[in-house]
Amino acid sequence: MSPVSYGMPNRKFKKNAPPARCARLLASETMIQSKVYMDWNATAPLLDEAREAILSGLDMAGNPSSVHGEGRAAKAALEQARRDVAALAGRDPAHVTFTSGATEAANWVLTPDFRMGRSPLPVGRLYVSAIEHPAIREGGRFPRERITEVPVLSSGVIDLDALDAHLAAHGKASHAAMIAVMLVNNETGIIQPVSEVTELVRAHGALLVVDAVQAAGRIDLAEHAGEADFLILSAHKLGGPRGVGALISRGEALMPAPLIRGGGQEKGHRSGTENLAGILGFAAAAKAAAIDMGERNARIATLRDRLETGMRHAAPDVIIHGADEPRVANTSFFSLPGLKSETGQIAFDLEGIALSAGSACSSGRIGESHVLSAMGFDPKLGALRISIGPATTEADVERTIEAFTRIAGRRRMAGAA
Amino acid sequence: MSPVSYGMPNRKFKKNAPPARCARLLASETMIQSKVYMDWNATAPLLDEAREAILSGLDMAGNPSSVHGEGRAAKAALEQARRDVAALAGRDPAHVTFTSGATEAANWVLTPDFRMGRSPLPVGRLYVSAIEHPAIREGGRFPRERITEVPVLSSGVIDLDALDAHLAAHGKASHAAMIAVMLVNNETGIIQPVSEVTELVRAHGALLVVDAVQAAGRIDLAEHAGEADFLILSAHKLGGPRGVGALISRGEALMPAPLIRGGGQEKGHRSGTENLAGILGFAAAAKAAAIDMGERNARIATLRDRLETGMRHAAPDVIIHGADEPRVANTSFFSLPGLKSETGQIAFDLEGIALSAGSACSSGRIGESHVLSAMGFDPKLGALRISIGPATTEADVERTIEAFTRIAGRRRMAGAA
Repeated sequence: MSPVSYGMPNRKFKKNAPPARCARLLASETMIQSKVYMDWNATAPLLDEAREAILSGLDMAGNPSSVHGEGRAAKAALEQARRDVAALAGRDPAHVTFTSGATEAANWVLTPDFRMGRSPLPVGRLYVSAIEHPAIREGGRFPRERITEVPVLSSGVIDLDALDAHLAAHGKASHAAMIAVMLVNNETGIIQPVSEVTELVRAHGALLVVDAVQAAGRIDLAEHAGEADFLILSAHKLGGPRGVGALISRGEALMPAPLIRGGGQEKGHRSGTENLAGILGFAAAAKAAAIDMGERNARIATLRDRLETGMRHAAPDVIIHGADEPRVANTSFFSLPGLKSETGQIAFDLEGIALSAGSACSSGRIGESHVLSAMGFDPKLGALRISIGPATTEADVERTIEAFTRIAGRRRMAGAA
Repeated sequence: MSPVSYGMPNRKFKKNAPPARCARLLASETMIQSKVYMDWNATAPLLDEAREAILSGLDMAGNPSSVHGEGRAAKAALEQARRDVAALAGRDPAHVTFTSGATEAANWVLTPDFRMGRSPLPVGRLYVSAIEHPAIREGGRFPRERITEVPVLSSGVIDLDALDAHLAAHGKASHAAMIAVMLVNNETGIIQPVSEVTELVRAHGALLVVDAVQAAGRIDLAEHAGEADFLILSAHKLGGPRGVGALISRGEALMPAPLIRGGGQEKGHRSGTENLAGILGFAAAAKAAAIDMGERNARIATLRDRLETGMRHAAPDVIIHGADEPRVANTSFFSLPGLKSETGQIAFDLEGIALSAGSACSSGRIGESHVLSAMGFDPKLGALRISIGPATTEADVERTIEAFTRIAGRRRMAGAA
């Protein structure tokens, strides 16, 4: 059995020859020679730059909170990483707080328990769009009865009129409103109108939290969400490691009460010994993402467009969700009538194509897509997500189209039988 | 200027030649040729086994929650890691939940919001010993007025009579009591009588949380805290990476409400994409820690005893805290009258010895030791902590004694002037 290998010719990306254990597991399940990874929105392969930075962090013996030379060296590296992550978002490094990931950042910031300096400034109600990631939809520390869902249009774009009406109706007596909107949807790739959301939020004196996890490295964060009160980022969607993320604020005065208290790290906002290796890997990925972003995404868009042309040719009834909306370059979310999400995902896996049925959460469970439902589709229709990245090749796309063609063909045959 | 290098001959440990940036920073501050790292309780150098495991985790492209082959391989590796960490504590792998570190685990489990299955089972009050780590003393999600501090004796050991009295006085009407006690104190190294605490806790129908961060790999967790309801572990004190830890329960029915909600990973107890590389590194360190624990610690005890003999010889007035109590083998916490913590730490740093003034938290701030205060000493006395590990050599100890001798001598001269 040949070891599994990924087709990743871009020299920035490591040829992901998985370790022996991984190869054995895969080989026992899929007898193919190489696998095409088309699930970058779930997690992106680690960048070489990030790997090197992680190794340098692992080699630093010091605890960044220790006073000795080792501790100070670790602290200096940590602060440089903060500048690199801030730069990707066009923000002040002083406003970046590192967390163990986007989910922790969401649970921290989504809370009624805000402070302006040392004074409490309670938040009364949380408004989340119907297409948010589960980490946002769960509402963090808000009790369920203080969370309101804001609908999206059938196009997959947040309903601004509905948001406006909600904010207008929000009673000032019940404290400030908080709005949580994602900048790029993880399933459809649709870019949400965060600038317009920001205007509404400002007009109503509310607070805006933007989940920028799928937007970072794909569109300009400063341009699209420059005025958001809080931005949430994740390293591993950018080619950094898993287990690290950040919450970026607009200032230092208005902050959520800490979720994790203890030793007082991160200016008291987030305690716990800093994950130095992870943070350095995050920073390296953020730096890499900021370089040639336009060029890189133009190339990715060409591949995605080729993929969608191929899919439409093979199955004219394929529905590509959000195809007419502004989308990031790397994502294609589609439904093939008669193909259930689970069946489809397994069929592609057997063809050597790793893709996803929406969000990669909940321990391998494939549920119905809440995004599809929010857009007014019957969730039983099912949908699959292909998401690509800088290391995706034309050959990967062609193999995916071939697999799609075979799967769509079998579906027709089954339908005829 | 020569690069800084650590004297770590044990082949299990990486010669920590720090990366260029680190070396430059250190060299600009300390003109010495090599540095002796005596601050293992703050963070232990990464084990080679852990580094290899981290690299294998970084190479796994899959998200453990994804359904495709890559995701399943990542999931299989995650479950093996859970078994390895459970084995170190003599527990059931099903009861291990991975977190971003011990501080997160503490903030999760220290909460009034417990559940027995799906039914709420509120906890009324938290009792913490006066020598707990700040991550425990802050009390997690308990409001301050529902936290009671339990004193320690001047020996540095928790006052069992006081605990018994507190538990007897705890009104049943105010729901169950929770007790949080560390198994090994991070500053003194004193082993706390957790078996006796467990008996008291059981007799009073309370819940017991044991911070085993400094105990893991140094004493047998099953023997000392086998009946604790919850154990807290940290990877980086064991030679694993920073940014990963675990909460280990006794069963699956009685659990704290999640601190971090979202995608439903870790059976819904802790959401967020798993830090696979960190978790595999943690597991490798846990496996290594379980091997030859007695032999390794006997060797470390010999070194520590040699160190203390040398210190007593150089400065007969040195106070070694907890020297007559059961201690772990690697820690020496001492006061040298006339030497403040901060001055002492800097003096040792200039001598090329990295040690610590107690807990390495709070962003480099050296506060007064709450452990010293709790033991009845004037915290202005100051204290320093030397903590060693498997890679510490006799030469490291001799250099530390020499530095100690010079620093103690200067102190006498200053006193005479």
